[in-house]
Amino acid sequence: MRAVDIIIKKRDHGELSTAEIRYFVEGFTRGDIPDYQASAWAMAVLLNGMSDREVTDLTLAMADSGEVLDLSQVVPIAVDKHSTGGVGDKVTMTVAPLVAACGLAVGKMSGRGLGFSGGTLDKLESIPGYRVNLSREEFMAQLARIGIVLTGQSGDLAPADGKMYALRDVTGTVPSIPLIASSVMSKKIAAGAQAIVLDVKTGKGAFMETLEDARHLARLMAAIGRLSGRKVVALISDMNQPLGDAVGNALELQEAIAGLHDQGPADFREHCLVVASHMLVLGETAPDLDSARRMAEDALVSGRGWEKFRQLVEAQGGDVSYIDHPEKLPAAALRQPLRAERGGWLAALNAREVGETAVDLGAGRAKKTDVIDYGVGMVLHAKVGDRVEAGQELVTVHANSPERLQAALQRLAGAFTLSDAPCEPLPLFYDVIS
Amino acid sequence: MRAVDIIIKKRDHGELSTAEIRYFVEGFTRGDIPDYQASAWAMAVLLNGMSDREVTDLTLAMADSGEVLDLSQVVPIAVDKHSTGGVGDKVTMTVAPLVAACGLAVGKMSGRGLGFSGGTLDKLESIPGYRVNLSREEFMAQLARIGIVLTGQSGDLAPADGKMYALRDVTGTVPSIPLIASSVMSKKIAAGAQAIVLDVKTGKGAFMETLEDARHLARLMAAIGRLSGRKVVALISDMNQPLGDAVGNALELQEAIAGLHDQGPADFREHCLVVASHMLVLGETAPDLDSARRMAEDALVSGRGWEKFRQLVEAQGGDVSYIDHPEKLPAAALRQPLRAERGGWLAALNAREVGETAVDLGAGRAKKTDVIDYGVGMVLHAKVGDRVEAGQELVTVHANSPERLQAALQRLAGAFTLSDAPCEPLPLFYDVIS
Repeated sequence: MRAVDIIIKKRDHGELSTAEIRYFVEGFTRGDIPDYQASAWAMAVLLNGMSDREVTDLTLAMADSGEVLDLSQVVPIAVDKHSTGGVGDKVTMTVAPLVAACGLAVGKMSGRGLGFSGGTLDKLESIPGYRVNLSREEFMAQLARIGIVLTGQSGDLAPADGKMYALRDVTGTVPSIPLIASSVMSKKIAAGAQAIVLDVKTGKGAFMETLEDARHLARLMAAIGRLSGRKVVALISDMNQPLGDAVGNALELQEAIAGLHDQGPADFREHCLVVASHMLVLGETAPDLDSARRMAEDALVSGRGWEKFRQLVEAQGGDVSYIDHPEKLPAAALRQPLRAERGGWLAALNAREVGETAVDLGAGRAKKTDVIDYGVGMVLHAKVGDRVEAGQELVTVHANSPERLQAALQRLAGAFTLSDAPCEPLPLFYDVIS
Repeated sequence: MRAVDIIIKKRDHGELSTAEIRYFVEGFTRGDIPDYQASAWAMAVLLNGMSDREVTDLTLAMADSGEVLDLSQVVPIAVDKHSTGGVGDKVTMTVAPLVAACGLAVGKMSGRGLGFSGGTLDKLESIPGYRVNLSREEFMAQLARIGIVLTGQSGDLAPADGKMYALRDVTGTVPSIPLIASSVMSKKIAAGAQAIVLDVKTGKGAFMETLEDARHLARLMAAIGRLSGRKVVALISDMNQPLGDAVGNALELQEAIAGLHDQGPADFREHCLVVASHMLVLGETAPDLDSARRMAEDALVSGRGWEKFRQLVEAQGGDVSYIDHPEKLPAAALRQPLRAERGGWLAALNAREVGETAVDLGAGRAKKTDVIDYGVGMVLHAKVGDRVEAGQELVTVHANSPERLQAALQRLAGAFTLSDAPCEPLPLFYDVIS
């Protein structure tokens, strides 16, 4: 077998065999297949596509390129969730404790922010002391003991994916749905997931801007699950506007905490309960979505979800006084609202512009080496469909420099579109694919 | 400007600007743009194509990546020819002296054999002493003195093309018509060509197997010529069966010498006179094809073409006693004919099989480090359309080992297809594109 023949086969629209895909991934991981062959191959995959079977083989080969965790050693079943990334998406911090409080183990490895899209790890690190670099042994032990782990990805998991992603980033081969799907699923499978709820975001503030692309990605990840013997449900949810009200690391953590006290925004509450319900059904803790929802609501209203979150933070070394008194969390020095210049209905609230404004404020990284400012961000006071009066606050910016504050207010002014006629609110979900 | 954005633009079917193409070629030549970006870009070009303007810009950027010869310093006008490669193609060795004998300078850098396709340099090196590594100064001086040079390509010419070709070879990006056209034309332009006759081969023994692909390549190279201010004519000629009768290095040289004594095969004679006529018109030595043909025939019949070839060999250090007495040239120890098993008309003579059999015998290189056996090869005794009787010799194999001789005879038996009904001879040329 030769790497160049595998490239040529894909170039000519052929379907690669399981053996060919394994050979390519293993050779690339070892360094026997050089980057220049892998990038030509990735471009051929991007332009010519892959069958569901090929993508599944690619996923499993990347998962098998390093250590694969076996969570069944410590829990009967563990459920995972994954969001494809958006703005204001603090769902994991609220949903994972709710589900764990229902008795279903949640062992999750999260990622950092990427461009305009925030990352759960960055948000959790707003809590002084919180460790996101648990070892394999710590991960397994904590999952067995308290049924919940939220940490970062271990470098030993799916190294082929890490190496391939770095190459795709500099060769124009990121936006390939087969490559995105296999990247996500290989990490989930290597982390031991047997049941996975995927939250595929679509809209202006998502990597899949069109519903068609989101459906394609969701359908493909569900197929990978089916073909690899994992239980997968993919929800397609809206990311035209941010989810909830808060955008920024400590601000989003505060909103997640409020959510666990059942004091969060309505859209965020509903989103969390739907995701939690699917996790409980997939993890065989509830027989159907209706009873799962009642179970999750009970964990929320009773405060058991909040207690589980506290337990999590304590277990991972975080100072719980910061979540018991969220006003102690990092906060920005300057706050200023943006007000509506006229009355109307909010017709659009560009999530991408909001996300990029947050990065400009210092909440994210423009380049990998940038240091995050945990306190900055913004809180929205209106969502699409709301009636807004002239002079009403649309959003409050939290900043640590007057220049960045003014730039953010200016940029955000363009993110809100008011209409003279009433507008429908945006749906939370578009579809469920399994 | 960033390399990744140029890759993305081509990935998304965009048209690259002149500045973008220059940036990419110059960065790649210097090593600032790594191989893994160049190979992803090449795959995108292969799959998404390029406009004529883009291909011309690519050609000129690659030509300008190294030294560019200015032949006008030594001759009023010089003409070049290029064949896209075939089996039994010894045209350059006969045509270049004929044209030079008519007073039109021919300065040509040739290549070596590639796979089943022979190379003029290998054939000329059958002559003991013949040098193919002339320096730039030697090239210019010899062109001024005797009006003819047949040498190898200098490493200083179009280094971007050499580097890109090596990368394409291992990344499945060879068969891209824009990349092939720019590769050929960049070397011709760097070698100082102002007028170029292209012989684009099509058929089983050519890299362009279909007439459609050959026309596409011919049209594109003519467009590059037009857009870059060079005079270009592209002939599309048949390569379903070998050209002439001899295949193999010394055997082809002998046939070229016979051709210069007007004792070569009829198809080879006609092919040479057509190519020479176009060169004479393009080089402004003859006003039209009819007078050009009379001029070339006169150079042939009078022996002036042969005298020019003798002068060339002597100038480049070759021992002329070997061309004066071609029986001194390297010859194989064993000769055995393949005979027709039955009578019929020759319907097909697979040039590719013949070319690969020649490589098997040692006439070419299966890998770059293989040493060429100059004496081996074969001589055909029938061409498509000929009537053949049972027991008649179809081809004589020249070999240096009994095993290779038998293997060649066996393989060649499958290269001849006999028909019970009369068959038309194959045309020599299909089209002329300018």
